[in-house]
Formats: sequence, C-alpha cells, structure tokens
Amino acid sequence: MRLRHKPWAQEKLESHPECVIMAPEQMKGKWAALFGNDNPIHIEIGTGKGQFVTGMAELHPEINYIGIEIQKSVMIDVLDKIIAKDLKNIKLLPTDGALLTEFFEQGEISQIYLNFSDPWPKKRHEKRRLTSEPFLKSYQDVLVPGQEIHFKTDNRGLFEYSLISFTNFGLSLEYVSLDLHASEMEGNVQTEYEQKFSAKGQPIYRCEVKFH
Amino acid sequence: MRLRHKPWAQEKLESHPECVIMAPEQMKGKWAALFGNDNPIHIEIGTGKGQFVTGMAELHPEINYIGIEIQKSVMIDVLDKIIAKDLKNIKLLPTDGALLTEFFEQGEISQIYLNFSDPWPKKRHEKRRLTSEPFLKSYQDVLVPGQEIHFKTDNRGLFEYSLISFTNFGLSLEYVSLDLHASEMEGNVQTEYEQKFSAKGQPIYRCEVKFH
Repeated sequence: MRLRHKPWAQEKLESHPECVIMAPEQMKGKWAALFGNDNPIHIEIGTGKGQFVTGMAELHPEINYIGIEIQKSVMIDVLDKIIAKDLKNIKLLPTDGALLTEFFEQGEISQIYLNFSDPWPKKRHEKRRLTSEPFLKSYQDVLVPGQEIHFKTDNRGLFEYSLISFTNFGLSLEYVSLDLHASEMEGNVQTEYEQKFSAKGQPIYRCEVKFH
Repeated sequence: MRLRHKPWAQEKLESHPECVIMAPEQMKGKWAALFGNDNPIHIEIGTGKGQFVTGMAELHPEINYIGIEIQKSVMIDVLDKIIAKDLKNIKLLPTDGALLTEFFEQGEISQIYLNFSDPWPKKRHEKRRLTSEPFLKSYQDVLVPGQEIHFKTDNRGLFEYSLISFTNFGLSLEYVSLDLHASEMEGNVQTEYEQKFSAKGQPIYRCEVKFH
C-alpha cells in the first residue's frame, strides 16, 4: 500500500491507551484482564485500514479482537472506525506480527486471521510470508491447542504456497474455497482490498486450517 | 460425455488381446511379466478418449501405462491411437476403477493419474468421487509406499473437496497449481477435455499428493 506520511499518527495512537497498546510485551498473560472478561481472543495480523477487524468486532460482541498492524499511519484509520462505532471488544497493536510469542502466552489466543498478506513472491523472501514455517510455529505457540487459522488472499502463488506449507506443518484443512465470492459462505466480512479486487471478477481464495 | 452406441466396440476390443486386457483379475501380481520388463507402472483411471495416456506413453517409453475406462465405446478411440502410434508400453482395462485391489497386488503400481474425473456434485454421491476416502484406500493398497497421485480437474467443487479429502487421509501436498496453464509446468500432456476447456480461459486445477 502506498502511504501518505502522517507525522501526527504516533501522537494520535498514544492518546488512545484504552484501545491502542503501545507496549504489548507488558500485557503477556494479562489480556483477559485487560479486556475485563474471559471471552475468546481472535487476532488479525495485518489489519490494513481495519474494515475486517472492526466489522467482525461489531458482528461478534462475544469475542475479543486484537488487530496487529506495523504501519502507524494506516492504523489511525482503524482507530477512527473503532471510535466511530464505539467498539469495546477490540485492541490495536502497532507492531510486528513476527513477535507474537513476546506478547502472548500459550493458549491466550483462540483464532488467527490472515487477510491478503504480502505475498513476498521471491523465493529468498519466503521466510517473510506469514504462512511460512517460522510463523506457523509462532501461531502454534500462542493458540489454544486445536484452534484455527483463517486465511484469505487473491494471490494465487501465495495460496498455493500456503496450502503446501500448512499441510507440511501437519495442519489439517477444514475448509477450502477457490472462489469465495461464488461460494455460499455466510458471514464473510470483506476487507477494503477484497471489496475492490473482487469487483474486478478475480477469485478470492480462502481456507481454514486447524492445529492438532 | 454423451456417447454414440457402438455395438461393434466389444468385438473390436476383444480382437486386440496384446493391448486390451478383458480379464484383468487374472493378471494380478503378473503385470511386469505381461509388459515383459520391470519398468514402473502408472495407471490412469478414466482415460476418456486417451489423448493423455497415449501422449504420456509416447513421451515416456521407460514407463508402462495402464488405462482404465468403463465405457467401451470410448475405449476403442484409445485403442485406435495406440495402434496408430504403435505403442508397446500401454495396456487398456475396459472396467471399473473401483476394483483396483482385484487387479493389482500391493506395490505393483508406481503412480496414479486422475484427470477430469466425474465431480459427482451431490453430497449423497460423495462415495463415487475418485478422490473420496474408499478410493484413496484402494490406491494406497496397490501403490508402492511413498508414491503419488497426480490429479487435475476444471471442477472447483471437486478440487476443493479433494484437497480436504487428501489431507484428511494423511497424504501430503507436494505440488499445487490453481491455474495450470498460467503456471510453468513442463511436460504437461493435455487431455482432450482440458484442451477444449482451457481454451475458454477457465482455470485448470492440479496437484500432486504423496502417500507416506
């Protein structure tokens, strides 16, 4: 995504400590206390402008959501949506998705969403893909055992790679759609990117995979 | 496929015992002897008119091929291609793909090809799909351990179903393409159906899965 420089972003994020967690490593093991209830916690890694994570939080008040996004100038758009909708069940982490095990204890997270992640198509960048082996290991290390990753993308190469990576890791495929918007999936919350992309008639790929 | 009735088909197949094996259950454990060498044996279940299996046999003289097709009036087209190309490394079985274990000993087969298999879209017909659990079991029972199924189809629903079925069975995904003709796969031999279908710009799905 091409970004406008927004020098006030950091300041704006810091002015909303009820929602934006600037030092998430200090919350490790304490997320239920922070949310003030024992509802399951789902995280999205790479929220973009946040249409997905805020839409989900609105639809599912019985679930707590954490949105992780490294671009602070993008995250202020997510924050604006949360404020506008007055959502209480969502926290934002302006940080890197590679550091999950520093922020969460094993079993603190009940589901992980990956939406339209950067495909990093070059072979030498494989390790940066959010579905590569080191990331899968980190998801396993924070998830309740037996829980799931839900992944969607328009990128054919990334989806092909990910199917193989998931099954090599021993994850089981619970659901696959090779054309999400032609499938009968209820409750699909679209990302901004998905909305724009699928309007062109290109297929969206989606799967749900489960740890054992 | 809509078929013309060809009453002479049975007679024509019977007149080529060097190629068409009318009683394959009698050859169980003796296929290498029948081919006259110890080359690996690959089978295609559902040859249709045989462009794939005869094309492969021509490209790979070091491999023996067995084509299985229940429609005798279609199989005579395969036979005509074999005669025209004078192929020695291929046998035809005018029979049902569900009976593999009656025809082959464990370890007699080195690879299985499924191309554009009937999708049987209704849930109550699931057991007829060539990638359902009972078929996978029968493939495992005739294959050399650790060998592969190579599967391609244009049918999205069948491919989605099959990916899940394969991984539930414990097969590992070795290769996936969600648009075969846009991928860089060398040596792809097209079926008649594939050629016609992909000319319309629709994607062909393909995967290779491996038994443990």
